[in-house]
Amino acid sequence: MTATAADTGTTTNHGTKIVLAKNQYGKAEVRLVKITRDTARHQIEDLNVTSQLHGDFEAAHTEGDNAHVVPTDTQKNTVFGLAREGVGSPEAFLVRLGEHFTGSFDWVTGGRWAAEQYTWDRIEDHDHAFSRNMSEVRTAVLEIADGRQDILAGLSGLTVLKSTGSEFHGFPVDQYTTLQETTERILATDVNARWRYNSDAVAAGDLDYNAIYASVRTQLLRGFANTHSLALQQTMFEMGRLVLEAHPEIEEIRMSLPNKHHFLVDLEPFGQDNPHEVFFAADRPYGLIEATIQREGVAPTHPIWENAAGFC
Amino acid sequence: MTATAADTGTTTNHGTKIVLAKNQYGKAEVRLVKITRDTARHQIEDLNVTSQLHGDFEAAHTEGDNAHVVPTDTQKNTVFGLAREGVGSPEAFLVRLGEHFTGSFDWVTGGRWAAEQYTWDRIEDHDHAFSRNMSEVRTAVLEIADGRQDILAGLSGLTVLKSTGSEFHGFPVDQYTTLQETTERILATDVNARWRYNSDAVAAGDLDYNAIYASVRTQLLRGFANTHSLALQQTMFEMGRLVLEAHPEIEEIRMSLPNKHHFLVDLEPFGQDNPHEVFFAADRPYGLIEATIQREGVAPTHPIWENAAGFC
Amino acid sequence: MTATAADTGTTTNHGTKIVLAKNQYGKAEVRLVKITRDTARHQIEDLNVTSQLHGDFEAAHTEGDNAHVVPTDTQKNTVFGLAREGVGSPEAFLVRLGEHFTGSFDWVTGGRWAAEQYTWDRIEDHDHAFSRNMSEVRTAVLEIADGRQDILAGLSGLTVLKSTGSEFHGFPVDQYTTLQETTERILATDVNARWRYNSDAVAAGDLDYNAIYASVRTQLLRGFANTHSLALQQTMFEMGRLVLEAHPEIEEIRMSLPNKHHFLVDLEPFGQDNPHEVFFAADRPYGLIEATIQREGVAPTHPIWENAAGFC
Amino acid sequence: MTATAADTGTTTNHGTKIVLAKNQYGKAEVRLVKITRDTARHQIEDLNVTSQLHGDFEAAHTEGDNAHVVPTDTQKNTVFGLAREGVGSPEAFLVRLGEHFTGSFDWVTGGRWAAEQYTWDRIEDHDHAFSRNMSEVRTAVLEIADGRQDILAGLSGLTVLKSTGSEFHGFPVDQYTTLQETTERILATDVNARWRYNSDAVAAGDLDYNAIYASVRTQLLRGFANTHSLALQQTMFEMGRLVLEAHPEIEEIRMSLPNKHHFLVDLEPFGQDNPHEVFFAADRPYGLIEATIQREGVAPTHPIWENAAGFC
Repeated sequence: MTATAADTGTTTNHGTKIVLAKNQYGKAEVRLVKITRDTARHQIEDLNVTSQLHGDFEAAHTEGDNAHVVPTDTQKNTVFGLAREGVGSPEAFLVRLGEHFTGSFDWVTGGRWAAEQYTWDRIEDHDHAFSRNMSEVRTAVLEIADGRQDILAGLSGLTVLKSTGSEFHGFPVDQYTTLQETTERILATDVNARWRYNSDAVAAGDLDYNAIYASVRTQLLRGFANTHSLALQQTMFEMGRLVLEAHPEIEEIRMSLPNKHHFLVDLEPFGQDNPHEVFFAADRPYGLIEATIQREGVAPTHPIWENAAGFC
Repeated sequence: MTATAADTGTTTNHGTKIVLAKNQYGKAEVRLVKITRDTARHQIEDLNVTSQLHGDFEAAHTEGDNAHVVPTDTQKNTVFGLAREGVGSPEAFLVRLGEHFTGSFDWVTGGRWAAEQYTWDRIEDHDHAFSRNMSEVRTAVLEIADGRQDILAGLSGLTVLKSTGSEFHGFPVDQYTTLQETTERILATDVNARWRYNSDAVAAGDLDYNAIYASVRTQLLRGFANTHSLALQQTMFEMGRLVLEAHPEIEEIRMSLPNKHHFLVDLEPFGQDNPHEVFFAADRPYGLIEATIQREGVAPTHPIWENAAGFC
Repeated sequence: MTATAADTGTTTNHGTKIVLAKNQYGKAEVRLVKITRDTARHQIEDLNVTSQLHGDFEAAHTEGDNAHVVPTDTQKNTVFGLAREGVGSPEAFLVRLGEHFTGSFDWVTGGRWAAEQYTWDRIEDHDHAFSRNMSEVRTAVLEIADGRQDILAGLSGLTVLKSTGSEFHGFPVDQYTTLQETTERILATDVNARWRYNSDAVAAGDLDYNAIYASVRTQLLRGFANTHSLALQQTMFEMGRLVLEAHPEIEEIRMSLPNKHHFLVDLEPFGQDNPHEVFFAADRPYGLIEATIQREGVAPTHPIWENAAGFC
Repeated sequence: MTATAADTGTTTNHGTKIVLAKNQYGKAEVRLVKITRDTARHQIEDLNVTSQLHGDFEAAHTEGDNAHVVPTDTQKNTVFGLAREGVGSPEAFLVRLGEHFTGSFDWVTGGRWAAEQYTWDRIEDHDHAFSRNMSEVRTAVLEIADGRQDILAGLSGLTVLKSTGSEFHGFPVDQYTTLQETTERILATDVNARWRYNSDAVAAGDLDYNAIYASVRTQLLRGFANTHSLALQQTMFEMGRLVLEAHPEIEEIRMSLPNKHHFLVDLEPFGQDNPHEVFFAADRPYGLIEATIQREGVAPTHPIWENAAGFC
């Protein structure tokens, strides 16, 4: 992202100039549906695409000179135009988008392109009737900077729950601690995960993004299901570890996991016991557990994370 | 619902009294999770329950006298207390709730109890680890009035799409008409449906609500998928017809179907054709198609619909 | 709304015909912004308009014959076309819309037209720069049936709170009651209200809908603020009473008021007192208090309420 | 944030260890309402507080050892406990929270504390009755790292619109460009802004955060209203410039501004003109214009932005 503090600000009454630093612009949330109908058995690809350009856009900010401002409307049109040739995977589509813009306009030195993809299941194996699978939202981000392509893939809102096999004890106690230790609780979370592919693997261009996505999703579910949990932190680390073990092409994975509290209801006042059967599912507040799990030797932060939404 | 215009209002400067008419109160959105753990293979039931009482609550309104006001907090507690004995189906659970309140308090002459139920799938057939199936939200409503129980069942937010097999033409044209006729379009909607069970069948108490729900869902999907559509109205009627044919215990079904427009993108300015492949999925405005399909002889409206959210 | 059970269904295996009952269709959520710029001091009107037609649409349902189906796209166009001549008030605009459709197409015997209106404030009294006032959402509904026009006006999401002056005690106690009586609590709610105008006043055509709306909003706020509350029911009744006293042209008013619980936090474990100063604002569950307050002699229910969203 | 790649991972089949990198955890969205009632004229402060700790939490991730895991429940309790002594401003409150945690637990080396604050207006100057002003959401973030406190303040969702005084032309044209140049359009956006205070000013402890917030809000509104806009980028830069000129204690400001498109409706098919009076307000896609405006010499990025939600 362009961060040159250019010589364009006006002098302020405090003796410093005011300058443009990091900036980006584009079209957000282009809702693209692509039907592939080469045969009677249609395929559907359903995406929400955002395009943001980085480069020399200073004159637009400081003088209202739009000579460099590729209209956001043009960016939207380009999404539809490139989709005519197919999508394939969100990652591959974003690469085509990014290369188009950086290849077409000298002053566009990079950018950030992102997509959500929604999944559709066939209705009873029908050729052209589908029902949307609301349980899956797949995400992808491409950032081009300094001639390098970096790619994040991810998923959001995968809600999981274990009805036993979760404990929480051994924590420090201070004047504000009222929580009781437990060896039996419900553990529930919405898995929000993003992983970054090895830059060399991205450059080589032979990653099967769809297959890797499906496999990572499976590993995350298994890590959650099969870990006897002493802390959501431990479960999260194990989920990430499984992903990295199975996928050498992934450098690191970040997760943001709300601890969705399910409180055991006290039924004693009503003359009833409650052997971990009846729970109240709370909305707010919730715990929030976030971490990056990575291969040793990887830099602790990478620029592509900077504009991720929140931690991941 | 109590609608007696009681003699409690004050005389206004316009010569009429101001009185309390229809009213109800209760606790909304009690988030109940019930784990059945008789064996190592746990079952999960996840509901959002609302309880509303009808009866003689006039003194609370006109004098702030709460002698009849069963606290909404008590209604919430009752949801949890009754859940200790199991849920079974949302309909059966609501009946137990409704009978509890109308049986416990003389002045509670009826009420309206509603639930949403969320579905969880096992993670790789795990005994106690689940992922939430976001594609299904099942709904149920019980209304007790005049000693009679009426039940609505339903589903919401079932999103479906056909990539061909949908036409729209032959419509009237006036000065404001710019829409072109088409014999090839995408048809997409979110199915929101509610159906009312025959009162005698409800009273007999032997309906298998879970099995019927699953079957109705299948019929709705089939009706959508297999109808060559000349209008969303026609598809909707066929969906309802299939449900009523398969289920004699259902008197009528209401649907509210947004016509989620997918506009074919004009790629000609970019030198491309677009043989029904690239679409823009619009948010607003959307068509909205709503109807009741019922057995001949059933009354055109039934009181239980009055407080449904919107049309259905 | 058309409710004739026409002779078009197929005979089912259970010996009854399946027929179309109540139905309506149209375009929902047309986002209209109207700028009046006769002078340099612009006026802005910002609405979300829904148009739904009632009448003879049976052939579309049973045969896919669209000869009567005024396209929802045409309905959208009509919203924009009529707006060219001005809006004025949401109620007046809906009347023009409704009269257009019922006057233009023989088979359109009625319909339901609804709008939300959003409020904009001038930025420092600027002629053409505005900031949106998110605190006000005004609503209006017109229903035409049997040659009669009925109008509901309303507001939604007006969030109010009293930090004292609210009690709750004297309620019945049963085995599920754990709530403690209180003479000091926070009372908070989101006011969702709709009121119905006298049909003769509507027909006379001289109601100043904008002025009445502003006055009703003031009465509701005053009723909430100035009632020492023994129950939210009592506060609600008083709010409605004030509206009806001030406005003889209003026949009845319905409110749906969530009781937004603010729980006093127990600070004793931390060695602190809490004299009604520190509260936790809960999300769910919440109390839900709903009623119609009306003039004596008005029918307990009116058909226009049937398709209201929920209770009001 | 702790980013040490510790020696705890297991060796994978790819010859590298898998390690914990950046991580944080805590309680999110604690809904705190504080009533100050020293006199009959109550004050209300309404916040949504999130607490996240940084430090040595590795054993929890790799071994499920919670000896360092201050429970998120304790963090919630601490929010309420500290609120007993007053809030004052969200920034000041977060500083007290942050200093409590970093001062109480050796291994908590820093953290990130955030708040939204909601505004309430008095109902007709009432002493203890309020209506919520939905038009203002104020935000604050404190990050403690390496013994230093950094503070972001901000606002979100301030929706503004100009009905004239906005142009867009002079942009580059390529094969995908269909947008027409215009010298007359509606300009509308939701202002999402965050600004970072000078670290020395924060350390000095004498900033009047409430007064600065009110002034920044005014500058942003004025910048939007009074700039004749040739590009939203230009308007944004001017808004930021005004803020920095007025407030030497602010080092930089970031904005994320959706370009909320209002499309002039083509009424010609209906035989009408449309001299910039009737518009369709679109939902998606929307332009998205983002930048940092800062004093010359300030580093182009600062670590506190890393976990901001999206760009700002």
